Amino acid sequence: MSVANTFEKVRAHARETALLSSISGLVEWDEQTHMPPAGAAWRAEQQAYLAGVIHRRSTAPELGDWLAELSAADESADPESDIGCVAREMTRVYHRLTKLPGELVEEVARVASQSHHAWAAARKADDFATFRPSLERMLELQRQRAAAFGYNGSPYDALLDEYEPGETGDSVGAALAALRDQLTPLVQQIVQSGVTAPSELTQRSFPVQQQVAFGKVAAAAVGFDFQAGSLDVTPHPFCGGAGPRDIRLTTRYNEHDFVDGFFSILHETGHGLYEQGLSEKWFGLPPGTAISLGIHESQSRMWENLVGRSRGFWQHFFAPLCAAFPTSMKGVDPDQWWFAINEAKPSLIRVDSDEATYNLHVVVRYELERAMIEGDLAVADLPGAWNEAYTRIVGATPANDAQGCLQDVHWSMGAFGYFPTYALGNLYAAQLFEQAESDLGDLGARFARGEFAPLLDWLRTKIHSVGQRVSAAQLVEQITGKPLSAEPLMAHLRTKFGGLYGL
Amino acid sequence: MSVANTFEKVRAHARETALLSSISGLVEWDEQTHMPPAGAAWRAEQQAYLAGVIHRRSTAPELGDWLAELSAADESADPESDIGCVAREMTRVYHRLTKLPGELVEEVARVASQSHHAWAAARKADDFATFRPSLERMLELQRQRAAAFGYNGSPYDALLDEYEPGETGDSVGAALAALRDQLTPLVQQIVQSGVTAPSELTQRSFPVQQQVAFGKVAAAAVGFDFQAGSLDVTPHPFCGGAGPRDIRLTTRYNEHDFVDGFFSILHETGHGLYEQGLSEKWFGLPPGTAISLGIHESQSRMWENLVGRSRGFWQHFFAPLCAAFPTSMKGVDPDQWWFAINEAKPSLIRVDSDEATYNLHVVVRYELERAMIEGDLAVADLPGAWNEAYTRIVGATPANDAQGCLQDVHWSMGAFGYFPTYALGNLYAAQLFEQAESDLGDLGARFARGEFAPLLDWLRTKIHSVGQRVSAAQLVEQITGKPLSAEPLMAHLRTKFGGLYGL
Repeated sequence: MSVANTFEKVRAHARETALLSSISGLVEWDEQTHMPPAGAAWRAEQQAYLAGVIHRRSTAPELGDWLAELSAADESADPESDIGCVAREMTRVYHRLTKLPGELVEEVARVASQSHHAWAAARKADDFATFRPSLERMLELQRQRAAAFGYNGSPYDALLDEYEPGETGDSVGAALAALRDQLTPLVQQIVQSGVTAPSELTQRSFPVQQQVAFGKVAAAAVGFDFQAGSLDVTPHPFCGGAGPRDIRLTTRYNEHDFVDGFFSILHETGHGLYEQGLSEKWFGLPPGTAISLGIHESQSRMWENLVGRSRGFWQHFFAPLCAAFPTSMKGVDPDQWWFAINEAKPSLIRVDSDEATYNLHVVVRYELERAMIEGDLAVADLPGAWNEAYTRIVGATPANDAQGCLQDVHWSMGAFGYFPTYALGNLYAAQLFEQAESDLGDLGARFARGEFAPLLDWLRTKIHSVGQRVSAAQLVEQITGKPLSAEPLMAHLRTKFGGLYGL
Repeated sequence: MSVANTFEKVRAHARETALLSSISGLVEWDEQTHMPPAGAAWRAEQQAYLAGVIHRRSTAPELGDWLAELSAADESADPESDIGCVAREMTRVYHRLTKLPGELVEEVARVASQSHHAWAAARKADDFATFRPSLERMLELQRQRAAAFGYNGSPYDALLDEYEPGETGDSVGAALAALRDQLTPLVQQIVQSGVTAPSELTQRSFPVQQQVAFGKVAAAAVGFDFQAGSLDVTPHPFCGGAGPRDIRLTTRYNEHDFVDGFFSILHETGHGLYEQGLSEKWFGLPPGTAISLGIHESQSRMWENLVGRSRGFWQHFFAPLCAAFPTSMKGVDPDQWWFAINEAKPSLIRVDSDEATYNLHVVVRYELERAMIEGDLAVADLPGAWNEAYTRIVGATPANDAQGCLQDVHWSMGAFGYFPTYALGNLYAAQLFEQAESDLGDLGARFARGEFAPLLDWLRTKIHSVGQRVSAAQLVEQITGKPLSAEPLMAHLRTKFGGLYGL
C-alpha cells in the first residue's frame, strides 16, 4: 500500500466524517435559533444518533491503522506538510478518543447531564451544598480521564490539552500570573481615579430592527461574506456552521443595551472570519481546521475589542450610528460615546465584564480549577476560596454563591481546562495585533477610513490559511518572533484605559 | 424468533431510519429558507450522503427478511392492526425500492439532473425543441421503471402507485373525466356571465410584516400548534418537518398580492395540521405516516379553500383583517372582499389558477402524461396536444410553450403520475368535508364564530390518527359510505360560483 493510497483513504474517511459533523452543526444551529420548543425531545435523539455515528467513525480501527502507516512514512517527517499535519493531528485526536474506556465516556455523559441539572437548580436557589456532591463526582471522573489520557506533570495538563493542544498548566499559568500581577493594580487605579464612564448613552432606545441592520453593515464592512454566511437570533450568541461556505453567526438584541447585541455580533464575526478563511479544500481535515480554542478566541476578541472598541473604528462608524439611531444619538459627543462603550469596572459576573477586567475573572477560575484537579482545593472549600480570590484579584466580593462560584456552567459539564482559553485568546490577540500593526502601519488610521481588508488579509495569510500545520505556541512565535507574553495586552490596556481614566 | 421480536427489530430499524429522514427534512428546509447561496455545493453533498444512507437502510436484506416473517405471521391477518399495517406498507415500499436495478436508479438520477437543466433553459428561451430529447429519454426510463415495478393494466398504474398507492389510471381517470365533463361547462358559464370580481382589492398595499402577523394568527386560530411548528419565508412554499413535533410551514410574501401569501399559509397549514395530527408514537412507521399525496393534498386544500375561502371564515376574520390593514381595507365591503378572494377565470398557468379552474389544469396534464406513457402521444406532438387540450378543457389557449407545456417542472424530473394527486386532493377534500358537515352541522356558522376545533377534531379522529392503516380509497369509503366521486366537489363549486357569478 503506497503512502498516497493510504493518505487518500484517510482523506476520504475524514471528509465523510466532516459531512456528518457539518450536518450536526446545522442541527445544533437550528436548535438554538429556529426549533420550536416541542421539538426538543426528538432533536436530542437526532443529535445523540449523529454523535454516535461520528464517534464510531472517528475511533474506527482501520483509521488507526492508516494513521499509523502515515505517521511512519517519510512524507510525514515535515510536520507542516499536508501529510505531516494530517498524520500528527488526526493521530492526536484518535488517541484521545480511543484512550478513554467506553464505560468512562458513558459515566461522564451520565454525570454531566445530572450535574448540569443540579447546578442549574443550585444556582437558582443559591445553594452550593446541593451541587457539591455532583461536582465532587465530576471532579473525580475528570481525574480519571486525565489518568487515561496520561500526562507528565499535572493531571490538569491532560485536560487542558483537549482545548489548547500543546499547552500545559505551567505554560498557561505563567502567562496568566504575569497578567494578574499587572492587571489587578491597573484595575485598582481605574477604581481610585474616581472617573466614571457615561454608560447611560448605550442604554437609550436602540430599536431592534435597526440594530440588526447596523450589525449586518458592520459585519460585512469588516469582511464577513454574507453570501457564505448569515446572522440570526439566539439566547446565547455563538458562531456555528453547516459547511465550508456556510457560516452561521448568531446574536441577541435588547432595545436598551446596544453594547450586548453589537459587540456580540463583532465577536461572533471574528470567529466567522476565521471559519470563512480556513481552506475549503481541506475542510474537515487538520490543514483546514482551526488550531485551538485559544486561537479561535483570539480572532473573536481581536475584532470585538482591538478593532470594534478602537477609536478608529468609531471614527468611521459614528456617523452611520447616528443615522441609524437619530433620536438616541442626538447631540451625543463622539468621545463620550467611545468612553461609554469602553467602561471598565470591577464586577462579579464574567459574561458581563469589560475588556479590562475580563481576564481577571478567568485567572480566578484557572487558579481554582487547577487547584481542585491537583487535589489542593476541596470542593467543599470552593465558595470561600472563590470569594477570597475575587476580592483579592478582581476587587469585588460576591454577596452569595449564585453570583459567585455557581455563575458558570462549565464545571458542571466537566469542562476543566476550558476557561484559560478565554484569556489566552486575549493574549494571543494583543500580541498578534501588535505585530500586524508593526507590519501594516497605523491600523487605527486605516479603520478610521473604513479600511479593514489589510488586517483581514494579514490574518488570512498568517493564521487562517495555516490550519493546524503549527501549534498555537508555534504560530505566535513564527509570526511575532517571541513566545507568548502578557506584555502586548498590558501595553494596550495601559494605553487605552490610562487615557480614558486619566491615570 | 417470535413475531414480537421481529416486529421490535423492524420498529427499531424504521425509527433509526426516521431519525435520518427527519434530519434530511431539516437540512432540506434549511436549504429552502436560511442557507446562504454559497452553501449550495456542500449542501448537495450532505443531501446525497443522507439519501445514500437512507436508501441502503431501506433496502437492507435483513429488513426484507424481517418483513417476510411478519407478513407470514397470523398477527398480520388484520390489515388495520399495527403489525398488519407495518407489514403491508413497509413491504410495499421495500419491494418498490428493491425491484429497481441499481443502474436504472442511477441513470434516472443522472438524466433527471440533466433534463431539469434542459427544461429550465427551454422554458426561459421558449424553445421546446431543446427539451424534447431529454423528455423522450426520461419517458423511456419511466417506462422501464414501470416494467421493473410490474403492472396489470397500464404502465401508468405502476408509476401512479408511487404517489397514490392502490389507485390506477382507470380509477383516477374516471373521477377526473366526470369532473372535466361538468366543470368545463361551469367555467364557460362563469365566463359568459360577464360578471367580474373586484380583484383589485387584494392587490393594494399589504405590508409584509403585518401579513406575517396576520397569517400566524390565522394559522394558530385554525389549530396549528406553534409550540410544535414554525412559519418561515421561502421562494416556493412547502410544509417541511424535522421531527414528530417540529413541523415547518413556509410561505412567500408580496406586498401587493394578499392572496398569494395568505392562502399559501392556509394551504401549508393544512399539510401541517395533518403532520401534527399523526401518531407521535408511530413516527416514521406506517401507522404514523400520511396515507398518500392525494390525502395530504385533501387536508391542505380543505383548509385553504373549503375553510379559508368560505364566507363563514371571513365573517370571523374580516374585522381582524381590517384592523391589520386599516389603510387598504378602509371602506371595503365584506361581500366584495369575499368575491375578490374567490375570483374564477380561465387562465394559462396552473399555479396561479383559482379554486374553480385549478382542476382543469390537472385534467389536461393527466390525459397527456398517460397518453405519453402508454405510447399514444409522441413527445414531438406534445406542444400541439397541450394547446388543443387547454383550449377545449380550460378555455384558454397558450400563446407559446413557455406558458404552455413547459410551465411545470414535474416531467423533467421524471414525475409521471404525480399531477393527478392534486385533483384527487380536491375531490377527497370536498367529499370528506361534505361528510364532516353532515356529522357536525353547519360548519360555516361555526367558522363565523371562530370555531375551527370541531372540524379539526373530526379530521384528527377520522383521518390523521389512522395513519396508513387503510388506503385512500378505503378511507373515503369508510368515512363517507361512498366511493370517490366528483359530485361533492361539483356541488360545492356550483353553489359557490353560481352565487358569486349569478348563474
